[in-house]
Amino acid sequence: MADAPLFDRVAIIGLGLIGSSIARAAKAGGLVGTLVAVDRDPAVRARVAELGIADVVAETAAEAAEDADLVIVCTPVGACGAVAAEIGARLKPGAILSDVGSVKGAVVRDMAPHVPPYATFVPAHPIAGTEDSGPDAGFAELFRGRWAILTPLSPADASDVARLGAFWEGMGAMVDTMSVEHHDLVFAIVSHVPHLIAYNIVGTAADLEEVTQQEVIKYSASGFRDFTRIASSDPTMWRDVFLNNREAVLEVLGRFTEDLTALQRAIRWGEGDALFNLFTRTRAIRRSIVEQGQDTAAPDFGRRATAPAKD
Amino acid sequence: MADAPLFDRVAIIGLGLIGSSIARAAKAGGLVGTLVAVDRDPAVRARVAELGIADVVAETAAEAAEDADLVIVCTPVGACGAVAAEIGARLKPGAILSDVGSVKGAVVRDMAPHVPPYATFVPAHPIAGTEDSGPDAGFAELFRGRWAILTPLSPADASDVARLGAFWEGMGAMVDTMSVEHHDLVFAIVSHVPHLIAYNIVGTAADLEEVTQQEVIKYSASGFRDFTRIASSDPTMWRDVFLNNREAVLEVLGRFTEDLTALQRAIRWGEGDALFNLFTRTRAIRRSIVEQGQDTAAPDFGRRATAPAKD
Ligand SMILES: NC(=O)c1ccc[n+]([C@@H]2O[C@H](COP(=O)([O-])OP(=O)(O)OC[C@H]3O[C@@H](n4cnc5c(N)ncnc54)[C@H](OP(=O)(O)O)[C@@H]3O)[C@@H](O)[C@H]2O)c1
Ligand SMILES: NC(=O)c1ccc[n+]([C@@H]2O[C@H](COP(=O)([O-])OP(=O)(O)OC[C@H]3O[C@@H](n4cnc5c(N)ncnc54)[C@H](OP(=O)(O)O)[C@@H]3O)[C@@H](O)[C@H]2O)c1
Repeated sequence: MADAPLFDRVAIIGLGLIGSSIARAAKAGGLVGTLVAVDRDPAVRARVAELGIADVVAETAAEAAEDADLVIVCTPVGACGAVAAEIGARLKPGAILSDVGSVKGAVVRDMAPHVPPYATFVPAHPIAGTEDSGPDAGFAELFRGRWAILTPLSPADASDVARLGAFWEGMGAMVDTMSVEHHDLVFAIVSHVPHLIAYNIVGTAADLEEVTQQEVIKYSASGFRDFTRIASSDPTMWRDVFLNNREAVLEVLGRFTEDLTALQRAIRWGEGDALFNLFTRTRAIRRSIVEQGQDTAAPDFGRRATAPAKD
Repeated sequence: MADAPLFDRVAIIGLGLIGSSIARAAKAGGLVGTLVAVDRDPAVRARVAELGIADVVAETAAEAAEDADLVIVCTPVGACGAVAAEIGARLKPGAILSDVGSVKGAVVRDMAPHVPPYATFVPAHPIAGTEDSGPDAGFAELFRGRWAILTPLSPADASDVARLGAFWEGMGAMVDTMSVEHHDLVFAIVSHVPHLIAYNIVGTAADLEEVTQQEVIKYSASGFRDFTRIASSDPTMWRDVFLNNREAVLEVLGRFTEDLTALQRAIRWGEGDALFNLFTRTRAIRRSIVEQGQDTAAPDFGRRATAPAKD
């Protein structure tokens, strides 16, 4: 007899990049009996049915949540509260409610009040993604070798936390737990502020009067193009991240700006050693990231030479 | 009869990533009769001989430059002046002297005084590279489909500029010309300041007391790792770039900081629309870069899933 699936019935709310990747990975891993998908957009619902990545496509979030053993909200962070309000009362006893939001404090603030006492809310955040969005962008291998972070709200939730952890491991992820507050600070530095400065430098380049947009595009292989990938990530998702992790982002941004001011000063005063020392120190971190399997060692990310430009 | 090579004798001074890529590409394209290589480091000279990427490995730059029709200085920007001082008097009548430096104003300032009237100095900058260094990092295809910028110093140099342009085209590059001053401003925004902020964010992350270095490494797939690739570029090369393109870098950095302050304010005051508008605007630039063949369209740069971490 094959292993019983980890969850009989799982509902995914929001079939974008992350939601549709979970649907694919969970089915591929045999982790669910019945997978129910729902999206507020009828076109997305139709596309999900067409792709065949869910067993049932529901019409509303409330309907999808009903009878589910595990419900995962995969909408932008700013929409999580409203979704929780819609489905809270429909959760069945013993159900686990989770999410995938890149911010945890605000999501807990917005979702927790709608969770009935007979269900358990276990916030989660998979550290995996691409710059693309929507149900066609997802793929089953997205979480493989990546971390999934759970931020449990109470020691009493231990067994549900373990079950949800097993679900993420079944999709190929490695599971970590941390507090909600610590999560938001860690991701301010490893994700949110990096995205902010990428968006910002692309904006600055677009606005310089002395350099044309065409020049910026043509010569982007000299460094700039790396930032444009990140700065092409979904605007709604990222607006919500910044609005909802305000304090930690502003705190880390303050540090970033202080450090940048010191670098600026070193350049102005020709302090080559200060520059050299920083530029040497930063290499060690890259090396560890590659050694720990969190990035490829291939030069230029192993990016292939692309078609010659026309111009 | 096969086409005669573009240059009978070409000398490459400094066999790092760029110099060794030129050696490989020029030989592969049949662009040179005899290719002479030189490096100040005996170990690099031995390695170049072993790799077989040059016809002759010279002992000194002066010796390499003698009799060459084209001499290309491929050292860090800060070393170009000393190299020019060493080789200037040895250049043969009609020789073209060029370089590959990422900064042009300072290189012209430092090299031009050493160029005899019977030779022509045509500064150049190929817009191609990786984060790696040294003779083993180079490869013949590096310049294919990438731009090579020439910054001619006088209209009288037109025929030499055309010959050097043909050489770069022979290595697969597309050639553009612009003024020295404009070059340094364009690359401050598309390359130098992006590198500076990448180095800076990696430094900020390393120094935060509340977040461990191990956390930064583990969760880097959420955005940070992209910056670490750039921030692992050669420290000497980049120190020299910042010291030698000071004015343009400080000017662009000023704009960057202004824009970042506005974003910071938008986050503080919860101005979601301002964030959303910027994040939407930046997507168009990414699209054009991909359309013009200056980057891959594959999500995550087509980066492969890497080995699972041990932790
Ligand atoms: N992308 C990443 O790299 C990444 C990584 C880790 C975590 N996350 C988190 O994962 C979540 C989803 O991101 P994603 O990349 O999957 O985004 P996505 O591809 O844009 O998908 C977002 C989904 O949420 C739905 N949605 C948007 N606004 C909504 C609203 N107001 N009410 C109900 N549903 C709404 C969308 O519906 P429509 O079909 O109508 O658009 C879509 O199904 C976000 O919380 C994000 O922070 C993202
Ligand atoms: N890397 C890029 O992405 C890129 C792109 C476009 C242009 N460039 C420009 O290309 C040039 C070379 O960069 P690269 O990436 O090829 O660097 P690299 O791999 O580090 O090679 C630098 C070469 O210069 C030599 N060198 C260093 N300091 C010297 C000195 N004081 N005197 C004489 N030779 C010295 C090195 O000799 P050793 O063997 O002793 O180290 C080595 O051969 C730089 O001007 C850079 O701005 C780089």
